[in-house]
Amino acid sequence: MRYAEPISRLIEALTRLPGIGEKTASRLALFILNSKREYVEELARSLIGVKDGVKLCSECMTFSEADPCGICSDEGRSASKVCVVGDYKDMVAIENAGGSTDRSESGYRGRYHILHGLLAPLKGVGPDDIKLKELLERVEAGGVEEVILATSFDSEGEATAIYIANLLKPYAVTLTRIASGVPVGGSIEYMDPSTLSRAMLGRVDI
Amino acid sequence: MRYAEPISRLIEALTRLPGIGEKTASRLALFILNSKREYVEELARSLIGVKDGVKLCSECMTFSEADPCGICSDEGRSASKVCVVGDYKDMVAIENAGGSTDRSESGYRGRYHILHGLLAPLKGVGPDDIKLKELLERVEAGGVEEVILATSFDSEGEATAIYIANLLKPYAVTLTRIASGVPVGGSIEYMDPSTLSRAMLGRVDI
Repeated sequence: MRYAEPISRLIEALTRLPGIGEKTASRLALFILNSKREYVEELARSLIGVKDGVKLCSECMTFSEADPCGICSDEGRSASKVCVVGDYKDMVAIENAGGSTDRSESGYRGRYHILHGLLAPLKGVGPDDIKLKELLERVEAGGVEEVILATSFDSEGEATAIYIANLLKPYAVTLTRIASGVPVGGSIEYMDPSTLSRAMLGRVDI
Repeated sequence: MRYAEPISRLIEALTRLPGIGEKTASRLALFILNSKREYVEELARSLIGVKDGVKLCSECMTFSEADPCGICSDEGRSASKVCVVGDYKDMVAIENAGGSTDRSESGYRGRYHILHGLLAPLKGVGPDDIKLKELLERVEAGGVEEVILATSFDSEGEATAIYIANLLKPYAVTLTRIASGVPVGGSIEYMDPSTLSRAMLGRVDI
């Protein structure tokens, strides 16, 4: 027996979400069926709401309600430092990382650039598929003194960082890469060999 | 840093779904943000669609697009047998259980009655909160010869089955309870004591 048509249609739509299988989708659909109409309307509205109410900041390419976004329009944040990240979640993570004393405020007071992807030739993601042109334009426009490469330390993130480093070499900007090493709380004993060898190579004076 | 307002609003709405925590909700919200508009519209439409397009069958109380539902309006299914289940998913499970020869068709050719809940005094669910009155009316209207109690074998399902058995005792209907015992594929060695003792008590001639 199949579910009633509107229910199977909802299940089908839900299974297209990441990490939602047939079983979870049925559970969610039946929950929706038993939910108050106001809640379901609110959920439907907020789905459309993110598509309608969120755009890209024309400066840093982040998702934002306003253009320029809150960070790009914040006079207190230096426009001379640009931290390049793969996606929006990475930016949120860095913003929430906290300074050394006040954890509620980020230690980083510069700007960002969101690539919306990382180079992945095997998945067909090339330089034109991520926001590299926009980064280049920002650097060419002047005012940027340091570009901090904060892409992940997996193969795609590393490749993207190297690509950007080469791309920006002709310009008068300092290029830095965030540090790689043993994470805070990490035990040397259980650390993987590549992290340890990186940490040794990247050792700093104390 | 907080997410942009429409994003946090969607995350908030998503966390109200069962089994969806803050992390999963953020992941889903950002997936939605990056999804094609058509998909998001389809998802929003099908959410509203289940609320608008699905009603309760006035006969058996199942979720259905039509009233009476496909099963209640199926002349090939005997109206004299009514299988009582806790909720819609239980009915779908029994429908999909399959007959002995053709697994695509249910072995059961009677009707259903969906209670939409089980008696649970500790959760404040009493006889008036589930579709018991409607079951009683069906039996009183006549034509029902057998009521098969197919509620779960946990405390709520058992209590509900006993309650219904008492409720329907005055009427000229056969009351049956689906069998409890070792599940197909179950190994005696690992079966819990209560299931084994039930299986022994409920033994049948072979």
